[in-house]
Amino acid sequence: MKKLVAEFIGTLWLVLGGCGSAVLACNYPDAGIGFIGVSLAFGLTVVTIAYAFGHISGAHLNPAVSVGAWVAGRLETKDLAPYIISQVLGGVAGAGILYVIATGNGSSIGGFATNGYDALSPGKYSMLAALVTEVVLTFIFLLVILGSTDERAPKGFAGLAIGLCLTLIHLISIPVTNTSVNPARSTSQALFVGGDAVGQLWLFWVAPIVGAILAGMVYKFYFDAKN
Amino acid sequence: MKKLVAEFIGTLWLVLGGCGSAVLACNYPDAGIGFIGVSLAFGLTVVTIAYAFGHISGAHLNPAVSVGAWVAGRLETKDLAPYIISQVLGGVAGAGILYVIATGNGSSIGGFATNGYDALSPGKYSMLAALVTEVVLTFIFLLVILGSTDERAPKGFAGLAIGLCLTLIHLISIPVTNTSVNPARSTSQALFVGGDAVGQLWLFWVAPIVGAILAGMVYKFYFDAKN
Amino acid sequence: MKKLVAEFIGTLWLVLGGCGSAVLACNYPDAGIGFIGVSLAFGLTVVTIAYAFGHISGAHLNPAVSVGAWVAGRLETKDLAPYIISQVLGGVAGAGILYVIATGNGSSIGGFATNGYDALSPGKYSMLAALVTEVVLTFIFLLVILGSTDERAPKGFAGLAIGLCLTLIHLISIPVTNTSVNPARSTSQALFVGGDAVGQLWLFWVAPIVGAILAGMVYKFYFDAKN
Amino acid sequence: MKKLVAEFIGTLWLVLGGCGSAVLACNYPDAGIGFIGVSLAFGLTVVTIAYAFGHISGAHLNPAVSVGAWVAGRLETKDLAPYIISQVLGGVAGAGILYVIATGNGSSIGGFATNGYDALSPGKYSMLAALVTEVVLTFIFLLVILGSTDERAPKGFAGLAIGLCLTLIHLISIPVTNTSVNPARSTSQALFVGGDAVGQLWLFWVAPIVGAILAGMVYKFYFDAKN
Repeated sequence: MKKLVAEFIGTLWLVLGGCGSAVLACNYPDAGIGFIGVSLAFGLTVVTIAYAFGHISGAHLNPAVSVGAWVAGRLETKDLAPYIISQVLGGVAGAGILYVIATGNGSSIGGFATNGYDALSPGKYSMLAALVTEVVLTFIFLLVILGSTDERAPKGFAGLAIGLCLTLIHLISIPVTNTSVNPARSTSQALFVGGDAVGQLWLFWVAPIVGAILAGMVYKFYFDAKN
Repeated sequence: MKKLVAEFIGTLWLVLGGCGSAVLACNYPDAGIGFIGVSLAFGLTVVTIAYAFGHISGAHLNPAVSVGAWVAGRLETKDLAPYIISQVLGGVAGAGILYVIATGNGSSIGGFATNGYDALSPGKYSMLAALVTEVVLTFIFLLVILGSTDERAPKGFAGLAIGLCLTLIHLISIPVTNTSVNPARSTSQALFVGGDAVGQLWLFWVAPIVGAILAGMVYKFYFDAKN
Repeated sequence: MKKLVAEFIGTLWLVLGGCGSAVLACNYPDAGIGFIGVSLAFGLTVVTIAYAFGHISGAHLNPAVSVGAWVAGRLETKDLAPYIISQVLGGVAGAGILYVIATGNGSSIGGFATNGYDALSPGKYSMLAALVTEVVLTFIFLLVILGSTDERAPKGFAGLAIGLCLTLIHLISIPVTNTSVNPARSTSQALFVGGDAVGQLWLFWVAPIVGAILAGMVYKFYFDAKN
Repeated sequence: MKKLVAEFIGTLWLVLGGCGSAVLACNYPDAGIGFIGVSLAFGLTVVTIAYAFGHISGAHLNPAVSVGAWVAGRLETKDLAPYIISQVLGGVAGAGILYVIATGNGSSIGGFATNGYDALSPGKYSMLAALVTEVVLTFIFLLVILGSTDERAPKGFAGLAIGLCLTLIHLISIPVTNTSVNPARSTSQALFVGGDAVGQLWLFWVAPIVGAILAGMVYKFYFDAKN
C-alpha cells in the first residue's frame, strides 16, 4: 500500500510540476521559462521523486514505465494494475490542484497542457509523426530506465539519468505532441479539457505502451546481465 | 554554535543568490536570465550549501524545513528556535548586501524580490491560489527532503535532489507568489520594501509551515523506515 | 555484438535527441529552446546513454571518441572499425527517424542540423576558425573523457562530466560550426541535405579525429597513472 | 610539473569555455544563450576539469582559489606561485585561441569578456558595488570549495557543487562586474582589450583574493574538522 501512495503522490507531483510549469510559467511575458523550462521541470519531478520515493515504490510515475518494467521482469504482475490506477488517480489529483491555482487569477485553463496531434499538435504535426515520436521516445526512455538501474550500472545515478532523459525527451518533442510518453499525464489533462483532447487520448496510451513493451523485451532478452 | 553560523551564512547565500539573481539579472535587456535562471539560482544556493555545510548543520536554510525536520524527528527540540532565528538573521543580512549592490548603479530596489498575492502577485493570483500553492509545494518539498535523506536512499545525492526540487518549485510558481516556501527568504525582502509586502508576510510564514508540518507527520508516521 | 548494438542505438539517440531538438524546437516561436536548449539536449543524450549502456559498450557514440580511446589504450584495435561503422549507421538511422518526424507537418528539412564553415557556418566563420574550433574542442573533450574515467577519478561521475562537457562545447561553438566534434553526427545530417554540406564533411572527420588523437597521446604518455 | 600542466590546460578551458560562450554565443540573434547560458558554461568548465584533472592538480583554475586553499592549509607553500603563474598563462592561451576563432568571421573582439566597474560594468554599477560583489561572492565560493572537499562531505560530489557554485555566482553578478572571482580569467581578457580594462584590473585581483583569504581563515580556524 505504501508503494501505491508513493506512486499517487509522485504522479501528482509530475503533473503539478511538469504541466504546472507549462500552464503557469511557460509564456509569462518577458521572463517566461519557455519549452526549456518546461522540459527541465518535467525531468526534475522525476529526479526529485526518484531520490525521495525510489526506495519505496521505484518511482515509476507512469503507466508505460510500469508496463515496460513488468515486461522486463522488474515489476511483479500483481503490482501492475494497482500501480497504473494509482498513477492515473495521482495525475488527476495533480491536475485538480493545478486547476485551482491556474484559475486563481481569473484565467481560463485554455488547452491546459494537453497532448495532441494534427490540429492539437503545437506545431501541427500529423498523427503518423506523433505515433513515431511517442513510440520511439518511450522506447529509448525505457532502455535508459532499465539500463541505468541495471546492477552493472554505477550505483545511485539512475535517478539523475532517468529524470534528465525525460528533460531531453521534452526538449525534442514538445512541438510535436506537447510530449507525453506517459498516459497518466495525458489523461490528467484531457479530462479537464474534454472534446478533441479526449478523442486523441488513445494515441497517448497506445504509443507509449508499445514503445515500452518493445524496450522491455529488448532489454530482457538481449541486454540483461543474465544473457 | 557552528551549526547556527552555518545556517546564518547559508541563508544569507540563499537570499543573496536567489533573490539577487532575480533583482539583478532576471530582466536584464536582451540577455536576462528570466524565471528559469532565477529558479536555477535558488536551487543552486541549496545544492552548494548542502555539500559545503550539510555535514555541519544539515543545511536547512529555511524555517519551514527546520519545523518539518523537527516534526519528523530529525531535529532536536532545543535546536529549533535557534535555527529559525539564525536563518531569519542570515536572510536579512543577505538582503542587506543585496541592497548595497542593487542600488550601486543608482537604481531603487523597487519591489525587490518580495512574495505576494493579489496585487503583489506577479500574475495577480488570489490569496486562495497563493495559499494552495505555498502549502502544497512546501509539503512536497519536505517529502523530498525527508525521503532523499532517508537511510534507505542512495548516499550523497540528497543535496542535488533537494536543491533541484527548489529549482522545480520556482519553475512552477514564480508567477503565482514569486515563490516563497521559505519564511526567512520572504521576511528578508519584505523588511526592505515595507508597506503591503509586510502586510502579506503572514501567508509566507503560515502556508510553508503548515505544508511542512503535514509532510513531517506523513513521513514520520507512514513512510519512515521504522513503520 | 551487444557492444555494437549499444553504439548503434546510442548514436541514433545522440542524433535524434541533439539534432532533433535543434530542428524541431530551437526556433519555435516565443518558447523555442534556443542554442542553450540544443546544447543541453546534446549533452543529455550522452548522460543518458552513459548510464544506460556505459557498462555494455563504454558509450562512445562518436568515431572521434573511439579513435581517441584507442590511441590511449582504452579500446582494443579489433573493436575500432566496428565501433565506427555502428556509430555512423546509428547516426543515419537517427537522422532518418528525425526526417519522418520533421516533415510530418509539411515542412521541408531545410539545412537540417548540418555542420559547416564559411557560407554554411551559422555565424559565417572561416574554414580556419572552424578547424581550430573543432580540433581544440575535441582535444579537451577527449581529455575530459580519459581523465574522468581514469581509475583515480571519483567513481560513477564520468557520465555526468562527459555529457555536460558536450553541453559546454555546444554552448561555445554552435555559432561557429553548428558544433560537431563527432563525425557520425555530421555525416548523418549531411547525407540528408547533400550538396555543399557533403562537400564540407571532410573537415568534420579530420578535425575531431586529429584533436582526439592528440588528446589520446597526451593522456597516455603524460597524465596516465602508469607514468 | 603535471600539476602545472593540468592547471594550465584547465584555466585555458575555463577562459575558452566561459568567455568563449559569452563572446560567441551570448547575444546570437534569436537563439542566443544569454547570461544563463554563459553562467552554465563557466560552471561546466569547472565541473569537467574537476572530474578530469581533480586527481592530478585539484583543479583550482583560479589564483584566488589557490590562495584560499593555501590559507586553509590545503596547498603547499611551494606550489602557490607556480599554480598562479600556470593559471595566468593558461588563461592567456585560452584567450588567444578565442581571439583566433572570434575574429574568424571578420568581427572585432569589441570588449571581449572583460570585467569592469562604472563605465565598464554591464549595468553601470559603481566601484563599491563591484568590490562588495567580488569579495562576498569569492568568500562564499571558497567556503563551498573548502566545505565540499572536507573529508566529512559526501565523496565525489565536490566537482558538481563547486562548478555549479560558479554557475550560480554568474547568474547573480554578470550585470554588476561581468563576474570575475578569478584574477586569471580577468587578466586574460584585459590583455587583449587594453586601455581602461587594464586600468581596472587591480580590483579583480584584490577583491577575489581578499574574499578567498577571509574564507580560508574562517574555514581553517572555525569549520575545519580539527576544531
